[in-house]
Amino acid sequence: MAMLQGVRNIFTFCSRSATSSFKYVGRAFSAEPPLTSEQYPDLKRGPYSEVTNADLTNFSSILDPHRVVQDPDEIAPHNMDWLKTLRGTSKVLLKPKTTQEVSEILAYCNSRRIAVVPQSGNTGLVGGSMPIFDEVILSLGLMNRVISMDKISGIMICQAGCVLEKLDQFLSESGFTMPLDLGAKGSCMIGGNIATNAGGIRLLRYGSLHGTVLGLEVVLPNGQIIDTLSTCRKDNTGYHLKHMFIGSEGTLGVITAASVMVPYLPRSVNVALLGCQSYEDLQLIFKAAKSMLGEILSAFEMMDYKSVKASEMTGLQNPIQKNNFYVLIETSGSDAAHDEEKLTKFMDWLMEENLVQDGTIGTDKQKMANIWAIRENITVGLVEIGYVYKYDVSIPVPRLYEIVEDVQEKIGDKVLTVVGYGHIGDGNLHLNIVTKEFDPKVLKLLEPYIFEWVKDCGGSISAEHGVGFKKTKYLHYSKSTECIQIMKNLKQTFDPNGILNPYKVIPNE
Amino acid sequence: MAMLQGVRNIFTFCSRSATSSFKYVGRAFSAEPPLTSEQYPDLKRGPYSEVTNADLTNFSSILDPHRVVQDPDEIAPHNMDWLKTLRGTSKVLLKPKTTQEVSEILAYCNSRRIAVVPQSGNTGLVGGSMPIFDEVILSLGLMNRVISMDKISGIMICQAGCVLEKLDQFLSESGFTMPLDLGAKGSCMIGGNIATNAGGIRLLRYGSLHGTVLGLEVVLPNGQIIDTLSTCRKDNTGYHLKHMFIGSEGTLGVITAASVMVPYLPRSVNVALLGCQSYEDLQLIFKAAKSMLGEILSAFEMMDYKSVKASEMTGLQNPIQKNNFYVLIETSGSDAAHDEEKLTKFMDWLMEENLVQDGTIGTDKQKMANIWAIRENITVGLVEIGYVYKYDVSIPVPRLYEIVEDVQEKIGDKVLTVVGYGHIGDGNLHLNIVTKEFDPKVLKLLEPYIFEWVKDCGGSISAEHGVGFKKTKYLHYSKSTECIQIMKNLKQTFDPNGILNPYKVIPNE
Repeated sequence: MAMLQGVRNIFTFCSRSATSSFKYVGRAFSAEPPLTSEQYPDLKRGPYSEVTNADLTNFSSILDPHRVVQDPDEIAPHNMDWLKTLRGTSKVLLKPKTTQEVSEILAYCNSRRIAVVPQSGNTGLVGGSMPIFDEVILSLGLMNRVISMDKISGIMICQAGCVLEKLDQFLSESGFTMPLDLGAKGSCMIGGNIATNAGGIRLLRYGSLHGTVLGLEVVLPNGQIIDTLSTCRKDNTGYHLKHMFIGSEGTLGVITAASVMVPYLPRSVNVALLGCQSYEDLQLIFKAAKSMLGEILSAFEMMDYKSVKASEMTGLQNPIQKNNFYVLIETSGSDAAHDEEKLTKFMDWLMEENLVQDGTIGTDKQKMANIWAIRENITVGLVEIGYVYKYDVSIPVPRLYEIVEDVQEKIGDKVLTVVGYGHIGDGNLHLNIVTKEFDPKVLKLLEPYIFEWVKDCGGSISAEHGVGFKKTKYLHYSKSTECIQIMKNLKQTFDPNGILNPYKVIPNE
Repeated sequence: MAMLQGVRNIFTFCSRSATSSFKYVGRAFSAEPPLTSEQYPDLKRGPYSEVTNADLTNFSSILDPHRVVQDPDEIAPHNMDWLKTLRGTSKVLLKPKTTQEVSEILAYCNSRRIAVVPQSGNTGLVGGSMPIFDEVILSLGLMNRVISMDKISGIMICQAGCVLEKLDQFLSESGFTMPLDLGAKGSCMIGGNIATNAGGIRLLRYGSLHGTVLGLEVVLPNGQIIDTLSTCRKDNTGYHLKHMFIGSEGTLGVITAASVMVPYLPRSVNVALLGCQSYEDLQLIFKAAKSMLGEILSAFEMMDYKSVKASEMTGLQNPIQKNNFYVLIETSGSDAAHDEEKLTKFMDWLMEENLVQDGTIGTDKQKMANIWAIRENITVGLVEIGYVYKYDVSIPVPRLYEIVEDVQEKIGDKVLTVVGYGHIGDGNLHLNIVTKEFDPKVLKLLEPYIFEWVKDCGGSISAEHGVGFKKTKYLHYSKSTECIQIMKNLKQTFDPNGILNPYKVIPNE
């Protein structure tokens, strides 16, 4: 840290204790939301068979009987989303351990036309991973083995139910890291990450899962196992089928294993938390970071004042003084001296330009985790305050914060808080509005207002959270009629009986 | 270059003149290959209509009549592949300028069941872009406009017929660069690059086109225009349709425009050409480069002695002494002093370990181009020698050169030369065998021997060149029966009449 001495006058070290990640499950089930079918009375249950005793007997011939769960208490958390906004009525939870078991379950359900919802960590935010009615829940949680790790090529193959954080810990032992990272890492699973094309905070550096996932093992609705578990970085033979399943949210097939290209753990990592006065200044800081930090810039996160205040609800303390905006910058590189020199030059420039009011830098693991925790715990903090209306949108960077101000002006007096934070590096804003409890009048003010706003500026109504159940009716704000028709054709091709994750992604007629 | 003084004793500067790229078209048409239909007498023409005078009249109502080409001399180069190995009998070349024209042409051909082959630069190496029988050739060459370039976000939208090198030149004026680069850049077009999921020499640094292409405009076989020309870095709304077209080689739709995320032009670039004694040493150099050059390593190319000798056939001179293997290393970063320091440390280590026999470093543009030309002109040089049997395979790095030695041992005495070069960073070998003229006996010795070899070590029979026409019958070496069946289902979904690029990618029954 010698190179950073010069900036210590304003950049203090963060040392308060915090957790770097958290368990999503367990925190969220203090109250039960109304049944989804009651919230959406117009939505009709599809023409699916109900599960009979004969079906249960059959499931118990495929799985050990104790992995065919019927205990309502054990099923309860799997029937709800983590945000406590939706609740299904499934009476059966199946817990396969092998791809063959998944295959047999799906083949059977397909022949009987029983609807199935695949579930990993169930940490999604758009209601994509729990039953809407009484779909059978297919939990991937017991499929949690790392199958292989090639330390020469940096290619890992693992089952779908591996928890993201555990994979990262496993890889760090041999000098590698996962190419994605997100707040829910303590609970979310790689299969769900891939099925939802999760973005997260390392996307700026390592790109999307469409690039880092080399291959998949997928079970189709008819039970057929599709093996594209390539360990080649390049394979250009025929249609690139894996991409059909990345981001299709479990509606075309169930991902059972993945081959992932994992980068080297960076030798040198620095994390800085900076405070600035305006969104205009924040954009100047972003431009300078891209230019001056170049290839070592690995994250550039924005939080407004109220986001950080929400994060503090989880017991964390913000180590720097009150500011209108906060920027979290991470660098990671192969040479500590070079990285610190680049960071020092950058900090000097920020001070000269008077762009930053206060800041703190962490270079050791615990301090960096403490800074990251402020960013990662915003979601949890908001849930502690009340009911959260979550919007995850792509907007051109210059206009990205304008929508937060617009929504604040429009309904600020009717809600507890309106907060904006996100991945500036990707033009991705998380806009969250909180009321004490769910209020349909507030929802009406927000939707389709926000979706129209986003469409008008050429953005996306779901930058990384997906469509799930909640956004199907708004899909047309981001996808043309022709594209939605092709999606329907593809669904028909892969899942002619429509048994897999119904009511999700594809808009209802 | 002050930092590199210490290694100048063996690292001389390259200064011989060379071109950094070349025009593929024009060089290759010295002789005509036999008709494809004669070479493959068992292959039957599909149930397509022949083009009538009424069809020509209709085409002339869609396009200006002078863009409906019937002159055999003008059509001749479009009927052949660049390698002079295949020749079709098309009598019509259509040259649309707009997406609307492409849409009307396809809708008409679909209604009349006329087969169509889309063609960009026609620089492919597996016979994917020219007619097999009498398919109408749809050239994208006149669709060569840059539609927009956002200098804040680094996102460019352009038509499919833009030549790769011209795009790179255009972007360099505003400080950006294309995320892909390959030997054929002077002729190949971005639409073809995307349709074939071209890899090339920057893949190590910027990843594949599945990551850098943000969206596409595609015309389906029925004439429907699909617009996913997103300018958002993140859009997670529904199935990620663009990936269906990336790498499907024009069999599912015709790409007419693309939105591409373009990186900043690196501020500091260095290129080194090193000579070493063995493939074992070359692997040690690779491992050290990944570790010591880290995030600034942007290319690591291997060439064996005979590859470089082939390149010299184009008039180039290798600036360093004779070696068994050559390594081309490129670094690109944001701080010249840091990059040179890293490179110097790396070079010092190579010398200490006695891993490198000779070398040269280029830091100015011309010298770097000269070094790159040696790598890029291998393909052209081989064609000058004779008929080239080209194999582009993925193989685990430790065994990558073993196949070259095996083939040399097996048939070295029956051919002019066996050469191996490629992108070590991606486990991608280009294995080329040259005879004076095409010899079916040699082909029989090579195939399926090479494909079996690759399959046995878990590799891919086409790392980046695609399947095209030539590799359809070998597809099963890299794709399972189930995957091939899904490909057929997708083809049926998108192109029920099978008019688009028939005889390509999907194996014949």
